[in-house]
Amino acid sequence: MKTLLIPFVALASLGAAPAPKPALAPSEIVAAAPATDWIAIAPADMLVMTLANGKQAVIQLMPPPFSQGWIGNIRKLAAAHWWDGLSINRLQDNYVVQWGDASEKKALPDGLVSVGEASYETPLDFHYLTIGLVGGGISSGAAFPNFTPLSEKDAYASATGFSKGWPIAASTPWPKSTKAMSQLERKPSSMKFWPIHCYGMVGVGRNLSPDTGSGAELYTVIGHAPRHLDRNIAVVGRVISGIENLSSLPRGTGALGFYEKADERVGITSIRLASELPAADQPRFEYLSTESESFAAYADARANRRDAFFNVPAGGADICNIPVPVRKKP
Amino acid sequence: MKTLLIPFVALASLGAAPAPKPALAPSEIVAAAPATDWIAIAPADMLVMTLANGKQAVIQLMPPPFSQGWIGNIRKLAAAHWWDGLSINRLQDNYVVQWGDASEKKALPDGLVSVGEASYETPLDFHYLTIGLVGGGISSGAAFPNFTPLSEKDAYASATGFSKGWPIAASTPWPKSTKAMSQLERKPSSMKFWPIHCYGMVGVGRNLSPDTGSGAELYTVIGHAPRHLDRNIAVVGRVISGIENLSSLPRGTGALGFYEKADERVGITSIRLASELPAADQPRFEYLSTESESFAAYADARANRRDAFFNVPAGGADICNIPVPVRKKP
Repeated sequence: MKTLLIPFVALASLGAAPAPKPALAPSEIVAAAPATDWIAIAPADMLVMTLANGKQAVIQLMPPPFSQGWIGNIRKLAAAHWWDGLSINRLQDNYVVQWGDASEKKALPDGLVSVGEASYETPLDFHYLTIGLVGGGISSGAAFPNFTPLSEKDAYASATGFSKGWPIAASTPWPKSTKAMSQLERKPSSMKFWPIHCYGMVGVGRNLSPDTGSGAELYTVIGHAPRHLDRNIAVVGRVISGIENLSSLPRGTGALGFYEKADERVGITSIRLASELPAADQPRFEYLSTESESFAAYADARANRRDAFFNVPAGGADICNIPVPVRKKP
Repeated sequence: MKTLLIPFVALASLGAAPAPKPALAPSEIVAAAPATDWIAIAPADMLVMTLANGKQAVIQLMPPPFSQGWIGNIRKLAAAHWWDGLSINRLQDNYVVQWGDASEKKALPDGLVSVGEASYETPLDFHYLTIGLVGGGISSGAAFPNFTPLSEKDAYASATGFSKGWPIAASTPWPKSTKAMSQLERKPSSMKFWPIHCYGMVGVGRNLSPDTGSGAELYTVIGHAPRHLDRNIAVVGRVISGIENLSSLPRGTGALGFYEKADERVGITSIRLASELPAADQPRFEYLSTESESFAAYADARANRRDAFFNVPAGGADICNIPVPVRKKP
């Protein structure tokens, strides 16, 4: 096609004289990452959703310490095959696709827990911070990685970064030095962090406070990051494959994008933990370690596009414009 | 439905004792705005796109001083009925829908101008700044409006705000006082501003620099704001109606989301300036003045949700999470 918006492929040199090599595009950095920078996603941490139209989506569940009460419920709901025969009930453009029980009458399985609102945030645990947010792999020579474009210019939180492959916000600015870090470490309860509603993230529908939702009603984001929902609704995972099978469904015409007629709802044939499927049917995905040097280079390139198409590197990027690379395991 | 995500409607009181009235939701603030806060969009500033499937989208073109070279071309292309019989050629999930000439062979009409790259930015003109970005209407008592959540925490620009109903970024922080303003006014050339790629914005496809595109190949954003494109591609307008008729189309399976087969492309029956249509067929839309007190209250409520559903107001919002309200003219 004549008109490129973002060429993800390397551009061939056109002339005889060697031109200065353009910087790598983010996708090229990801493609060049060594196999050791990729982390396999365990089958027990994936849900496979099969729709009545035959299409599928795969959801990766968040790791500890985030949202584990809801995620425990979701594992039980999947094991009970609770969603089978239910439907996609809502699609609001530039917002969410939501699924669950349109009748509101289906009994929940036994053993679900009621999660408190305090669990929307996670108190700082320096174990997680160290390996996730300021892990040594990202930094080259410094004790703390230079994630300035992410950490200092966010409208919703004092800091943002990545932990174990997930976009995370924090209530306190990043420590800038070893000394600042050790000061923070002496009062860890002053810092909290929480998952971020980026495109494709999966959250738990709920009623008014103090309800926090069980995990039976879920949605995924299909528009600009609705970050006003952060800390107000539990984020439990993200769609890592097949988001287009949800985002391209017709928009609902009722209030909030709910479908008005039963026959507008696409049915859910099943939602299964991948670990429950026969081994041959289990999806195999991996994500680029957010503690790897490859990821640091990718994030920097997302914030400062230097590849051939771009005239002006932005000098920064919001965290939802740095999606964590996920791919089928080669 | 049992599970609300964001109730846009007022909640009925459930008990006999009057509870404290919850703060208005952003949509309620907009609904309560006086008619005088709404500004009609001129038919000459709207394009009506009719697809071969019978669905429509309406695009509002940007006002001066933004992107007028490209917009002049677009007016000529529409007057020449240039897009009639062409097609939607690309849909990349969480990115863009693009349309134009898939054959790359259709001759352009005479009289199109070649716009220079300098036009991606606009030098500061205090006329526009005064009426648009720091207009008196927003502020209550102060010389400058308190747009702090927008202006200080942006990953891509020193400042963001609204001018004449459009989201705009600037190269210099907002003046915080009359004195700071008058200092800036003495060296206006030091400040530039540019339109922002939010959801639904329309931009001009191009080839590699120094090409800037003619306006014949257009796209609209259907995902998280791709703000790395700001200042790299011209923004010329936004879809104000019918975005769902574009965003719900099937995703292209080729590179960059281009459709691989001709029969996957939805045809464009026509794109017309609304002013060219019979008066009875002209769409009638209006937007909420971004210089109005209603808009200031709306923007503040978007950044600090205090309505019943929310537990934690974010304390800020990025500019693309404050979409300018547009509605059919009552």
